[in-house]
Amino acid sequence: MPLWNSRFRKPLAESALKFSSSIDVDRRFYNEDIDGSKAHVQMLVKQKVISAADGKAILSALEAIRRDIASGKLTMHWRDEDVHTFIEEQLVKRVGERGKRLHTGRSRNDQIALDERLFLRREIEAITALTRKLQIAFLRQAERHKKTIVPGYTHLQRAQPILFAHHLLAYVSMLQRDRERFADCLKRVNRSPLGAAAFAGTSLPISRTQVAKALKFDGLVENSIDAVSDRDGLIEFIAACAITMMHLSRFAEEMILWSSHEFHFAHIDDAYATGSSLMPQKKNPDIPELVRGKSGRVFGSLVGLLTVMKGLPLAYNRDMQEDKVHLLDAVDTTSSSLALMTELLAHTIFDSGRFHDELEGDLSLATDIAEYLVAKGMPFRKAHQAAGKVVSACIDKECLLHELSMKEFKAISPLFEEDVFELFRPLNSIKRKISEGSTAPREVEKQIRSWGKLLRAR
Amino acid sequence: MPLWNSRFRKPLAESALKFSSSIDVDRRFYNEDIDGSKAHVQMLVKQKVISAADGKAILSALEAIRRDIASGKLTMHWRDEDVHTFIEEQLVKRVGERGKRLHTGRSRNDQIALDERLFLRREIEAITALTRKLQIAFLRQAERHKKTIVPGYTHLQRAQPILFAHHLLAYVSMLQRDRERFADCLKRVNRSPLGAAAFAGTSLPISRTQVAKALKFDGLVENSIDAVSDRDGLIEFIAACAITMMHLSRFAEEMILWSSHEFHFAHIDDAYATGSSLMPQKKNPDIPELVRGKSGRVFGSLVGLLTVMKGLPLAYNRDMQEDKVHLLDAVDTTSSSLALMTELLAHTIFDSGRFHDELEGDLSLATDIAEYLVAKGMPFRKAHQAAGKVVSACIDKECLLHELSMKEFKAISPLFEEDVFELFRPLNSIKRKISEGSTAPREVEKQIRSWGKLLRAR
Amino acid sequence: MPLWNSRFRKPLAESALKFSSSIDVDRRFYNEDIDGSKAHVQMLVKQKVISAADGKAILSALEAIRRDIASGKLTMHWRDEDVHTFIEEQLVKRVGERGKRLHTGRSRNDQIALDERLFLRREIEAITALTRKLQIAFLRQAERHKKTIVPGYTHLQRAQPILFAHHLLAYVSMLQRDRERFADCLKRVNRSPLGAAAFAGTSLPISRTQVAKALKFDGLVENSIDAVSDRDGLIEFIAACAITMMHLSRFAEEMILWSSHEFHFAHIDDAYATGSSLMPQKKNPDIPELVRGKSGRVFGSLVGLLTVMKGLPLAYNRDMQEDKVHLLDAVDTTSSSLALMTELLAHTIFDSGRFHDELEGDLSLATDIAEYLVAKGMPFRKAHQAAGKVVSACIDKECLLHELSMKEFKAISPLFEEDVFELFRPLNSIKRKISEGSTAPREVEKQIRSWGKLLRAR
Amino acid sequence: MPLWNSRFRKPLAESALKFSSSIDVDRRFYNEDIDGSKAHVQMLVKQKVISAADGKAILSALEAIRRDIASGKLTMHWRDEDVHTFIEEQLVKRVGERGKRLHTGRSRNDQIALDERLFLRREIEAITALTRKLQIAFLRQAERHKKTIVPGYTHLQRAQPILFAHHLLAYVSMLQRDRERFADCLKRVNRSPLGAAAFAGTSLPISRTQVAKALKFDGLVENSIDAVSDRDGLIEFIAACAITMMHLSRFAEEMILWSSHEFHFAHIDDAYATGSSLMPQKKNPDIPELVRGKSGRVFGSLVGLLTVMKGLPLAYNRDMQEDKVHLLDAVDTTSSSLALMTELLAHTIFDSGRFHDELEGDLSLATDIAEYLVAKGMPFRKAHQAAGKVVSACIDKECLLHELSMKEFKAISPLFEEDVFELFRPLNSIKRKISEGSTAPREVEKQIRSWGKLLRAR
Repeated sequence: MPLWNSRFRKPLAESALKFSSSIDVDRRFYNEDIDGSKAHVQMLVKQKVISAADGKAILSALEAIRRDIASGKLTMHWRDEDVHTFIEEQLVKRVGERGKRLHTGRSRNDQIALDERLFLRREIEAITALTRKLQIAFLRQAERHKKTIVPGYTHLQRAQPILFAHHLLAYVSMLQRDRERFADCLKRVNRSPLGAAAFAGTSLPISRTQVAKALKFDGLVENSIDAVSDRDGLIEFIAACAITMMHLSRFAEEMILWSSHEFHFAHIDDAYATGSSLMPQKKNPDIPELVRGKSGRVFGSLVGLLTVMKGLPLAYNRDMQEDKVHLLDAVDTTSSSLALMTELLAHTIFDSGRFHDELEGDLSLATDIAEYLVAKGMPFRKAHQAAGKVVSACIDKECLLHELSMKEFKAISPLFEEDVFELFRPLNSIKRKISEGSTAPREVEKQIRSWGKLLRAR
Repeated sequence: MPLWNSRFRKPLAESALKFSSSIDVDRRFYNEDIDGSKAHVQMLVKQKVISAADGKAILSALEAIRRDIASGKLTMHWRDEDVHTFIEEQLVKRVGERGKRLHTGRSRNDQIALDERLFLRREIEAITALTRKLQIAFLRQAERHKKTIVPGYTHLQRAQPILFAHHLLAYVSMLQRDRERFADCLKRVNRSPLGAAAFAGTSLPISRTQVAKALKFDGLVENSIDAVSDRDGLIEFIAACAITMMHLSRFAEEMILWSSHEFHFAHIDDAYATGSSLMPQKKNPDIPELVRGKSGRVFGSLVGLLTVMKGLPLAYNRDMQEDKVHLLDAVDTTSSSLALMTELLAHTIFDSGRFHDELEGDLSLATDIAEYLVAKGMPFRKAHQAAGKVVSACIDKECLLHELSMKEFKAISPLFEEDVFELFRPLNSIKRKISEGSTAPREVEKQIRSWGKLLRAR
Repeated sequence: MPLWNSRFRKPLAESALKFSSSIDVDRRFYNEDIDGSKAHVQMLVKQKVISAADGKAILSALEAIRRDIASGKLTMHWRDEDVHTFIEEQLVKRVGERGKRLHTGRSRNDQIALDERLFLRREIEAITALTRKLQIAFLRQAERHKKTIVPGYTHLQRAQPILFAHHLLAYVSMLQRDRERFADCLKRVNRSPLGAAAFAGTSLPISRTQVAKALKFDGLVENSIDAVSDRDGLIEFIAACAITMMHLSRFAEEMILWSSHEFHFAHIDDAYATGSSLMPQKKNPDIPELVRGKSGRVFGSLVGLLTVMKGLPLAYNRDMQEDKVHLLDAVDTTSSSLALMTELLAHTIFDSGRFHDELEGDLSLATDIAEYLVAKGMPFRKAHQAAGKVVSACIDKECLLHELSMKEFKAISPLFEEDVFELFRPLNSIKRKISEGSTAPREVEKQIRSWGKLLRAR
Repeated sequence: MPLWNSRFRKPLAESALKFSSSIDVDRRFYNEDIDGSKAHVQMLVKQKVISAADGKAILSALEAIRRDIASGKLTMHWRDEDVHTFIEEQLVKRVGERGKRLHTGRSRNDQIALDERLFLRREIEAITALTRKLQIAFLRQAERHKKTIVPGYTHLQRAQPILFAHHLLAYVSMLQRDRERFADCLKRVNRSPLGAAAFAGTSLPISRTQVAKALKFDGLVENSIDAVSDRDGLIEFIAACAITMMHLSRFAEEMILWSSHEFHFAHIDDAYATGSSLMPQKKNPDIPELVRGKSGRVFGSLVGLLTVMKGLPLAYNRDMQEDKVHLLDAVDTTSSSLALMTELLAHTIFDSGRFHDELEGDLSLATDIAEYLVAKGMPFRKAHQAAGKVVSACIDKECLLHELSMKEFKAISPLFEEDVFELFRPLNSIKRKISEGSTAPREVEKQIRSWGKLLRAR
């Protein structure tokens, strides 16, 4: 029997109950719901709203319910409406009349807000830890590939040679911003809404601060109307997940490219690839493909929850029940994607010699020619044109840069001298870089060291 | 053991299998999968690719598998990878070697495309039927409220009096467009992709046309690459669902407004409302609130699937496995929302006398004044100003339109005569309308009759 | 001075006027607005609501206004509020009092709905024509590459050799569905809302049908409330654009891949690529990159307009003014993307010999081995495993398929005979295909012919 | 002539230039572009990459260009490609050869990243200030309505009486979170990407740190690949805008409700409302309607930019040019919506006596009855039922709470005593609240004071 039916003449229609039941989703909050109820009861006892004996009975019954759910002894059915109702009814079954005091000075409105914040707090911590693990996987590969030279790409065109470590470290930076974003979100999430009751507060002598402290919140969501009508933390969290998934989709795209026959740079372990039911030779990069696709899921959840909240008057509206499906999907998708990309990356072999020969004298060294001329005093815009002529000459002759003659260089600019040929070794190009954060070995080494300190510290 | 592991040295990692397993979702296609396999086998027999005896054994085993799944005797686990693998393995268990001939000339790429189209075809029919039922519910209320006068609103401001039936019929029109959209989508969905094999076709003598006919498709998705790389039908379907849900969200908003204390026009049946765990007097319009919120879910699915498909090279990519979660959620959300809104509407009592007194002499009759003056020859723009002056006079005097004196009317325009007072009965305003599709009783009656014919025909 | 201020005591605040002015956007409808006004006036004359003389004066003034706007003599400013107000005020300036009769029996609510439908009708036709042109560009390249063999990909892994024409024709099919979708949308768009007036119809003797005929509509949006509160056609249109853009993003992705150093299959004309301000050798595939990015814009517009409409009560609400920015952006983005992709494709050279040598004996012929064994009687699942063993042998020996000895084949299955070596020519693989819509030259030729007939017919 | 055409044989096609030109959008960054170029040049001088004389000439020419753009003397055309090219070309026109040294050690890739960060930094500050102004407008109304009693709503049903100030303060809290979110975003935005050059860094002796300091950044985006491929800050910003707009849409919805005939609680000033071109009596809440609708625009931009970035390989891709249209639209929409809602709110009169009579003995006081019984020792769940019976009695008798007799109360529970009638004054209900953050006058006063301190401090 629902908690609320005092004034109703008819039971809720079966179809309406099924449609409105949220227990298939909110069952996942049972631990948080029990944690919250325990803190609430302890406060009610302290505030003398209920007796110590009643409090004790309730507390131990709540723990027993928790155990029974965990062990599978107790199961929830859509008829149970929601996790709060289910647990309160179980409680009354076990401790009788005393259980009916549990809901004193609170409402399901502040209760679900509490459960969601407790849940989100824990998940933010878990996702942050998973993100850190992925950073470490990137860092390890970077350490392994400090000397691996690869073509860097812009527009998927070969642009300039870089150290592969440098490329991998870009992801470490991206993921670091993701972690900061989750941490910032947590500041706003980690505040207690409990005690807002339905939305107006209560005339019973509860202590919101006491509950907040017991549950290790940083403070209250003070305004009681705001406390029950706010879902900002969830949206902000899903937005942060969306950015993380976008980052993962970019790395996934690269893994897919690098695993192709044409790039053949990355060798995904057999344990992380699958084949075809028809084509016997296939080995497919399923994990990154799925991760790339799953970005859509989190983008969709973000739109979903923003749509739910658009144009809702205060305070609580039932539409807000539709927040959980989006929250949980974002949590699960982001967590599992992070975990799998970490495993995949750790088990991937990048062929360190793959591009070595191809980059000798490659046109992607043309920027070095321009900078060489600038160092000799030519304005950059003219140096760019001179280097462009060198490139054109190579295209016409179908040759590499070092296959042009000194005479041909001189014809383009008298500033060219014999030392120009030193530019055409990719490693030289890389070593000549000197700007902060560049692909120069010294700069990459510096980044590796500082990330190592940050990520491996405990 | 997966169907594809011929060349692999290592099994798929447990975590990777769990991450990539789609069976929790595609299990819902087991009927379609079996239907498709049966048609495929029958064709293989006819084409003499497999023997009649093998065919017979496979067919009866497939039916047995279907029964066992339906009865719950056979259950699927994420380790089973996907519904195709599960069924094929079951088949081999039951008929041995012969079962290994089932997958001849096809791939999971065309198989899943087939399953989805069969599933979608059925669901489009079901949703179309549900939409029709909701239209009928609107029509019934319209028949009941042919004479109920309500204020029509624009900008949520009272605009002009209308028949409530007229308002309800607007939804019948909206839902009719929804049905047309689903029907148009079906034309593109109802084509068979089977026989595209992986994407290039096959050298085995299959007949795609034969299978298409057996499964009652309108034809083939001819190009075999297109056949496996296309998910347009799903996106188009979800877009159509999004528009339907948008329509439902608008009616939901109105039900919520009309159920409020301030409007107190709609009385939702107790069987379709819930109360509050804290506030004993509450009766909340949960069903429309949930429907309004669920629009977000379908909008999110639409974004999700568009994101999945964005930028994918041909032909099949594993990202596309992420289509099903969005498809199924859109199907379930739209179906259940249509069904519940139909029940809700059928059980709602609209108070036919609610606005009767309030509209007598109401300022929302001002348009009639302007049209009255136009009929007497005044240009409309001037008539609008004159009527505006009448309104201003009422606001100043805090009176209703019929409470102004003839003298006051004459002061505004000499064209006013005694008959102006007839305008101030809302029913007169409605009856004076003559344009096609207007709120005039005759026009509303006409709409009711033609919808009745269309919707009640069999 | 606004058209509506009869009852207001204060002018609209400057900031509020600027915020609410829509003329920067709806100015693009001036032609449609004038077309609609002309049809409206002609009907008013015929219905004797206004005199023939007044009608004539209004009609010729409207044409003069159109000319002055087109020539730039008349310009609109945000202070003019919207295009309807601007034109009506211009009219009154030119024909005085008579101009004040124009707005008889209509409202801006039905007027904007009319303008949008007229505009959308024209744009749907234009986009359909652009889509057809892109289909023809694909067809032409397909005709050019009927014999070009390329690796077909799934999961971006080489899967089976195909004719490049076959791949290109997949896009012709996709675009054909796009055209059908636009045509279906047009059926619902091409109905006249005019005469709904504000939403309730009018007491003046207008003829909606007459106006609809004059403007070549297929009929009326009958219900007058629906007529002004509906924006379905716009959403459906933007959804269709989103699918088209998704298709273009897929082809764009492929153009980008094929233009890379690693694939070096497509050579984009210099006239459709740009370079780098820093790196002199760069030639970037900007057009496909921009098109791929612009898909986001249309997905965003779709979300934007669905959000606008979510939860709006009937009939008209000012939120709906926010429809136009999304509509226009979708029109412009889709049109220009179609046009540029057409030019790009027409100017791209695909290297027909690029993959010729690489595919000889390539592992992507493994499916042919399996089908070969099936043709000899082996169940497919076992044939798949046998072919998998062949692949494994090649991987171990780092050799191609034809480099295995007959003995090695026999060791895997005694069914292998000398003719197996014929499979390892990619052209043979392609020629052996026989299924409908497959990559077999005959099937591809058939597709080319039937598309030619359809697309080149006039 | 483009900056990059050194190696090209053909000019860019007219259509391609028009399609790819970004100047219609990035012209808005001209100030930032010039600021960045100035800092870059000053560093180049300090680093002796260019001479002091050249530097001086460039700096003063840049200032002259800025002035000429500001005054309208210089205008940009789509043929100018982008703002960077335009300004560099202007510079060369003015200072000749020397101007060609400007682009030394940088690329448009890091330059646009810099411009966007400078622009975003300024806009975040502006939006934060606008948000604060709106908070102050809410606070002022709260101060005015400290004693105004209104029904609080959940599910749009009257729930419990509250102080209107309490309701308004919920928005102050919501907006405070918005400000925090913008501030957190700024931390990540306020880092300099300049000096990343194309993405690999440079061999020229630039100092990134020096430029960062000159432009008042908090530090560098260290990794040069990350520096040019990252658009996180923009997405995070648009997500923050989306939440702000969602908040505004909620208040907009309430303003629309409250302005309706049925609620008639809020009186929007004539200067912030408009009328109807047809219906003379209309006064429409256009501003809140438009704001509500504009939420769709920002949600759409968020989807748009996430879609753009999905699946892009590192480092820069031309797709990313599509970031600006979304950024600028989010900036403009959010800024103007904040500003207009502030004006609107300041000019709205809320009728403080509106609900006074209606709430006396209203069923929304039922919670107080339940809490009264709890205070007398009854378990809450039973008290809820008893209060439910009271409500039912009133519904049956169609009376108010205080119209029941003592006898009737006693029949429901013997715990009821004469003092129960004191509950039925709404003010008593409010005063009895004691929980932190509740609607109790003391708590509301406390919130007003602390917000006053925070918001009015300088």
